[in-house]
Amino acid sequence: MRSEDLLNQKRIRDFGIEIGNLKTGKLNAITDVAGVSVGHVTLSEGNMQTGVTAIIPHTGDLFHEKLIASSHVINGFGKTTGTIQLGELGTLETPIVLTNTLNVGTATNAVIDYMLEKNPEIGTTTGTVNAVIGECNDMFLNDVRARFVKEADVHKALNETSMEFEEGAVGAGRGMLCYSLKGGIGSASRVITATNVDYTIGVLVLSNFGMLSDLIIDGNPIGKKLKKKILQSLEEQDKGSVMIVVATDLPVSERQLNRILKRSVTGLSRTGSIITNGSGEIVLGFSTATKIPHMKPAQCLTIKTIHEEDIDQAFRAVGEATEEAVLNSMITAEVVVGRDGNSRPTLKNLLEKYDIIFSPR
Amino acid sequence: MRSEDLLNQKRIRDFGIEIGNLKTGKLNAITDVAGVSVGHVTLSEGNMQTGVTAIIPHTGDLFHEKLIASSHVINGFGKTTGTIQLGELGTLETPIVLTNTLNVGTATNAVIDYMLEKNPEIGTTTGTVNAVIGECNDMFLNDVRARFVKEADVHKALNETSMEFEEGAVGAGRGMLCYSLKGGIGSASRVITATNVDYTIGVLVLSNFGMLSDLIIDGNPIGKKLKKKILQSLEEQDKGSVMIVVATDLPVSERQLNRILKRSVTGLSRTGSIITNGSGEIVLGFSTATKIPHMKPAQCLTIKTIHEEDIDQAFRAVGEATEEAVLNSMITAEVVVGRDGNSRPTLKNLLEKYDIIFSPR
Amino acid sequence: MRSEDLLNQKRIRDFGIEIGNLKTGKLNAITDVAGVSVGHVTLSEGNMQTGVTAIIPHTGDLFHEKLIASSHVINGFGKTTGTIQLGELGTLETPIVLTNTLNVGTATNAVIDYMLEKNPEIGTTTGTVNAVIGECNDMFLNDVRARFVKEADVHKALNETSMEFEEGAVGAGRGMLCYSLKGGIGSASRVITATNVDYTIGVLVLSNFGMLSDLIIDGNPIGKKLKKKILQSLEEQDKGSVMIVVATDLPVSERQLNRILKRSVTGLSRTGSIITNGSGEIVLGFSTATKIPHMKPAQCLTIKTIHEEDIDQAFRAVGEATEEAVLNSMITAEVVVGRDGNSRPTLKNLLEKYDIIFSPR
Amino acid sequence: MRSEDLLNQKRIRDFGIEIGNLKTGKLNAITDVAGVSVGHVTLSEGNMQTGVTAIIPHTGDLFHEKLIASSHVINGFGKTTGTIQLGELGTLETPIVLTNTLNVGTATNAVIDYMLEKNPEIGTTTGTVNAVIGECNDMFLNDVRARFVKEADVHKALNETSMEFEEGAVGAGRGMLCYSLKGGIGSASRVITATNVDYTIGVLVLSNFGMLSDLIIDGNPIGKKLKKKILQSLEEQDKGSVMIVVATDLPVSERQLNRILKRSVTGLSRTGSIITNGSGEIVLGFSTATKIPHMKPAQCLTIKTIHEEDIDQAFRAVGEATEEAVLNSMITAEVVVGRDGNSRPTLKNLLEKYDIIFSPR
Repeated sequence: MRSEDLLNQKRIRDFGIEIGNLKTGKLNAITDVAGVSVGHVTLSEGNMQTGVTAIIPHTGDLFHEKLIASSHVINGFGKTTGTIQLGELGTLETPIVLTNTLNVGTATNAVIDYMLEKNPEIGTTTGTVNAVIGECNDMFLNDVRARFVKEADVHKALNETSMEFEEGAVGAGRGMLCYSLKGGIGSASRVITATNVDYTIGVLVLSNFGMLSDLIIDGNPIGKKLKKKILQSLEEQDKGSVMIVVATDLPVSERQLNRILKRSVTGLSRTGSIITNGSGEIVLGFSTATKIPHMKPAQCLTIKTIHEEDIDQAFRAVGEATEEAVLNSMITAEVVVGRDGNSRPTLKNLLEKYDIIFSPR
Repeated sequence: MRSEDLLNQKRIRDFGIEIGNLKTGKLNAITDVAGVSVGHVTLSEGNMQTGVTAIIPHTGDLFHEKLIASSHVINGFGKTTGTIQLGELGTLETPIVLTNTLNVGTATNAVIDYMLEKNPEIGTTTGTVNAVIGECNDMFLNDVRARFVKEADVHKALNETSMEFEEGAVGAGRGMLCYSLKGGIGSASRVITATNVDYTIGVLVLSNFGMLSDLIIDGNPIGKKLKKKILQSLEEQDKGSVMIVVATDLPVSERQLNRILKRSVTGLSRTGSIITNGSGEIVLGFSTATKIPHMKPAQCLTIKTIHEEDIDQAFRAVGEATEEAVLNSMITAEVVVGRDGNSRPTLKNLLEKYDIIFSPR
Repeated sequence: MRSEDLLNQKRIRDFGIEIGNLKTGKLNAITDVAGVSVGHVTLSEGNMQTGVTAIIPHTGDLFHEKLIASSHVINGFGKTTGTIQLGELGTLETPIVLTNTLNVGTATNAVIDYMLEKNPEIGTTTGTVNAVIGECNDMFLNDVRARFVKEADVHKALNETSMEFEEGAVGAGRGMLCYSLKGGIGSASRVITATNVDYTIGVLVLSNFGMLSDLIIDGNPIGKKLKKKILQSLEEQDKGSVMIVVATDLPVSERQLNRILKRSVTGLSRTGSIITNGSGEIVLGFSTATKIPHMKPAQCLTIKTIHEEDIDQAFRAVGEATEEAVLNSMITAEVVVGRDGNSRPTLKNLLEKYDIIFSPR
Repeated sequence: MRSEDLLNQKRIRDFGIEIGNLKTGKLNAITDVAGVSVGHVTLSEGNMQTGVTAIIPHTGDLFHEKLIASSHVINGFGKTTGTIQLGELGTLETPIVLTNTLNVGTATNAVIDYMLEKNPEIGTTTGTVNAVIGECNDMFLNDVRARFVKEADVHKALNETSMEFEEGAVGAGRGMLCYSLKGGIGSASRVITATNVDYTIGVLVLSNFGMLSDLIIDGNPIGKKLKKKILQSLEEQDKGSVMIVVATDLPVSERQLNRILKRSVTGLSRTGSIITNGSGEIVLGFSTATKIPHMKPAQCLTIKTIHEEDIDQAFRAVGEATEEAVLNSMITAEVVVGRDGNSRPTLKNLLEKYDIIFSPR
């Protein structure tokens, strides 16, 4: 159901790879969770290969109708902001913005602006606002020191979100590498059933981690094979990161959501990651099932949550969707020539070049 | 409303000390939270000065109607068990038992027995059970190596709980020291209002920490004064611990409850504690407001919780009740002569001996 | 280099499966870390199919020469004890004992006894001791309610450790299941190089988790294939757990060790785990590189640690060793007929029955 | 030893209040820790009542000689950045900058600039850099929405640090409130002895929390008394925060440092805090005793640390210094008339007005 121009992006399923057992959502993307939309701004010219990806978690008033949210640090060698409050209060009250490492400050400023504009009471009659910004380091392809992202770029990404969005070398993913090849933005989703109702778990990753020789595709150690074929000298340093954003409409407490976020590592691992020292890996997640009002209501809140025994499908879903999202981020990525002429092969080109066909296992 | 034999125990309020601003519950004890009951078994003979204190969190079926629960480690130099699962699942499914450090294994066995007896399905048609045991080290007065506590003692404490209970040198508190004086069991409670309903926060402490010269009573550095008067040579080594058990009927999520538990440290600090290295300080808490069923129901759960803006009264209450509970544990404690003839003065005796009268501030 | 009677145990490498890139230690077991020894007591008769596995971390005085240690909770639905103090002080001062869930109290008592006997000053002139006990629930094959393990069994396991030890349905692993087949004890090791010195990372698992259809062996979704072949009705409920014990002689701080422990999940994931709700998964680890004295020395301590940039090999090693240890626990396990005649196929039997041969990938 | 112009600032000791037992450093300030310097930029005009306070942790190359560091969240309702990496790697590699809540993005940008300028290899031949920014919300006195702080202000604060610095309504403290009165920057220090060597623990707070009626000064419930005297209608809403920065030259591991940071809450509590919901309270700390090199050396690192039994003096010191730093922040603060003409009394003026004299206790 993806629109025409996006249909050109062949995803990992188009290569015959079906990760896991669960069925996907309609778009097989984070935006299968009703209300979630994604926007990119891509900055691409010479040494400037970077961008912004914005995730709007629901269509309502984000500040007054907060979502139950959580974060999980797989590897804390990263600069994600906003997670202290997320953990303390268990709520998200802004969009989530992803960009490059040294532009987190700028993205923070822009998200604050965005929220101040919509909420004149912030900082006057009510408190402040907690921006949540994730990042990866795109210094191989992008002159990260130049800090190309401007607040206007973040506003643009926030204002142009939609349910359909490109993957690969776009938005915050423009300059990222994954398993020593071109990485970037990828997404996937799964549909699960609890108490006879269908729910969706959607994942969006900003992939920027791993070394080629470790890459596994659905159990197949394709990285090892490719490593032998392409330049042995391909530098395999992992100074990366991965941001994983998880959205769901499953009714969960923040504790339950946190448990779900933690399982994303199973999918990551199955693509071959050993979670190296230099790779900041952070998971952010929210559930749209419950809106927590900013203003205190007259009565207690009533939070709907699944029983713990219904959580296993969500655990499976987030692992599968993360694994597939990483693969989608790689297979959709186009070649980017960036800083100092640096470039990396794309997975798609390598598969074609070496005529690798995935056969059913 | 305390029964006659307990009325003999003069508590800190009987000495004119009123901690904080909030009103107390009827008994000014953890058992002001409806359904909570406490039982002691005291073992006292020569080198054996130890015991067991059991807290039953509600009158129903603990295993099938779990309570939202949490724990918080102030200082982890301790051997409390059961907190890993408490944190993961956010529920309590057994009584809480307190005893001395080297009897945690025995108490665990007894609580498991207690639960197995009541629930034939544990370990047959359903999973196992998570016992929660807290401890302090009473080696100064008790021959802790002898491990005097037997499973029967724990069963007795579990089976003889009531709303009214003694404080001081009883139960698990028999051999404990607090601020170099006699310590043990103390309790207090506060009543708060949220969304126009009255709720209770009750605290029970097993006090076994601190050095005399640090003791503060309602702002008064009484410890410094006493230190000058009594034997200067009084050894002030803090190899202690404090267990803080918090009960409430306030409707809270496990995250909110955890926030409340964390504030107990304010009360502890105001009695003078610097939280020394050797003092394991752990807070366990539960809310009786919601029962989480063991068996998965057909529908989602519905959890009632306060709005975060209504939580400050609970923060104030737990601090006040903790402070008062510590003071109650000291002022009610009688002299115990234990291991190798060891003994410590009681706060009450010192106040009388040096004719210290608390005047209103 | 394994002794004759153990050579009968064919391990996963004997089936042509080589996990990862790093070379193994001599025994390819946790005991490749110098000083580490392992002992089993296996209880097997009718409904009694359980046991004890003890890991002695070094040959010296455990209490007076503590090791830098850490723990990590992958999924906290478990009853492991001793981790609060491990986290606070960063040291291990006892053996680690593994047994079934409802015998944690008994094992705690036995380890305390063991330590008291060796250290008359515990509880007299110095403080107490922190026993570290891990567990899994073996209720399918073992009558866990009967709590068959006695303190004498634990003592026996502690007193009969050696560098060579059996894997599979032995010790604490006697009654465990893994991926719906027979599981239990497994081990593996890897050798890494940092600052030109060789170090070893050894892993021992007590495997009791997973559902057959999820089982992956070196990328091969063997579980799915087996599931189709054997009884479709094979109940695939995961009420399990896995304990992962990591030993190393790498000089690390407790923070670095904790980072290493966290990476064990990558190996677990690559065997197919989705880390279900019911599966308590806990990692315990220690480094033998530094002994922390119990008694305060006259001078500051001097802790040798690797630079963070040298940690990636350890991350890779722990993932590989965990993956291989899980597979070893399965492939070495023999058939056990236990509680109510319950039994599960072994991996080895299934591979033979269906003539599955692993071909190099 | 404070210079003439600063001598005009009467501190709490000048009013006869001596907190605790330990002796202070020479300046009784965070800068008693050798190498630490502090700089303020104060923005004060009409609705603009805010600023920046920068702490430079040592005089060397911050990026290449990192310090062992840690953070602790007392209450996470705050927007401090940089703590994820601090926790993962245990090191600080930049100055710490404090400012108002909505200027965290700008401060992040400025600190990144500052580091990029000094380190041309960041983002080219080595990775990126982790800025650590703390904040409180000064919206009562400052038009926080206007985001007055510019990058140049942050640079100025960073470039004009010194060992002597003003306290009270200066730098980031310009617009802050504490216990409903004027708050801001305060500092104190303590000298402790371990293994016969003197070490210093210094604290700097940005105080912006509490309600007047809760204020306690050295045990004296002065807040209650003042509340009765001054306008009863004084709004006592706590939408505040407190940042606590701890510096020491004590040789500690990041785990030990974290334990020290946690004890700052004892001092905070003794000033009367109940740690309300809205008050983000975060502790950042570092030790100058060990420099961790950015570049991997040929050999392992050697980290000097105290034995755990020597840590109690540090626990006492950080509590005392935090308590005194809060009181210093209040007593030195001058009257600020800010946003919409808002203003709050100062503690000094109230003490004078109501002729309150502290008598020795």
